[in-house]
Amino acid sequence: MSYSKEKWKGGTLLAPVPPALVTCRDNGNDNVLTIAWTGIINTIPPKTYISVRPERYSYDLIRNSGVFAINLTTEALVKACDFCGVRSGAKVDKFKETGLCASDAFSIDAPILDDSPVTLECMVTDVIELGSHHMFLADIVSVDVAKELIDPSGRLALEKSGLLAYCHGEYYSLGKRLGSFGFSVRKKKKKRRK
Amino acid sequence: MSYSKEKWKGGTLLAPVPPALVTCRDNGNDNVLTIAWTGIINTIPPKTYISVRPERYSYDLIRNSGVFAINLTTEALVKACDFCGVRSGAKVDKFKETGLCASDAFSIDAPILDDSPVTLECMVTDVIELGSHHMFLADIVSVDVAKELIDPSGRLALEKSGLLAYCHGEYYSLGKRLGSFGFSVRKKKKKRRK
Repeated sequence: MSYSKEKWKGGTLLAPVPPALVTCRDNGNDNVLTIAWTGIINTIPPKTYISVRPERYSYDLIRNSGVFAINLTTEALVKACDFCGVRSGAKVDKFKETGLCASDAFSIDAPILDDSPVTLECMVTDVIELGSHHMFLADIVSVDVAKELIDPSGRLALEKSGLLAYCHGEYYSLGKRLGSFGFSVRKKKKKRRK
Repeated sequence: MSYSKEKWKGGTLLAPVPPALVTCRDNGNDNVLTIAWTGIINTIPPKTYISVRPERYSYDLIRNSGVFAINLTTEALVKACDFCGVRSGAKVDKFKETGLCASDAFSIDAPILDDSPVTLECMVTDVIELGSHHMFLADIVSVDVAKELIDPSGRLALEKSGLLAYCHGEYYSLGKRLGSFGFSVRKKKKKRRK
């Protein structure tokens, strides 16, 4: 397909992005909020970021505590994921409203979601004030993985979790698997005949 | 679903992420490379980033020119997308090898991909050296949109483009639409009876 393009003004039209449920705690206050402005920024050492509006209730919790957790979301979590993006922890107990269950993280003082298959525990290293959002750069200090998704060989069968994607204002499930990294240059195994 | 977690060491297990084809140009040299370490970092003004290993051929092109373009990828581009992530522009002409066609960008001196439905034209504002990767923070100066996907009301029908997602080493299509932002709190319209 070859498209003919027209120029629009600058905007945030990157897709798909991960609609993550971010959990945080400060002074015994736990909260959970949805963040799509996240990504990996470094491999070695592993680093990520989240960009948060300073007006959001969780902003001060994260700024004060210096930690947060990124919980990947699934089809089963789509309603909770949406709710935690539009309602504020200043007004409602989002754990109670959504039925999300949390445990304590392994490495940081924050809750992690039992309903999420993978959680990235993060420690803030820098905050960059960019405009509408402030960017929290963070080290990924541990990754918490659902035991139920680890197959006998030790591999994480993440494809069984039904991850969510967010794309131009809509939530999607993932569809067909189309190939694995490197498939375009991999030599095909020759079929052997007996 | 409630999972029981085990702690793994820190890693880059965020998913799904956008497997973008990034285009760049310096001194008349054009290149295209695949980048999954990208995301939106600010809404107003619109800002994004890409994290690139300094060893990659495109690193110097982007560092010298101060511009790049993020081209969203589709199912039709999955092979090109994979190829441009594993082969280097120092050794092969990736446009020639993949058959990708490019035009000149509207706002920056770089190529943009005709095969991509949406391109974000970006101007670098900062470079942060994080470790294995350097992070290019950038203003999104324009968004180039496929005319063929703009419906009569002016809405971009991005769902028709068949966007790709990248998840834990695998490429996926998007699946079912599960709801739009805010659906969890939206009041249902009452059915009117005549």
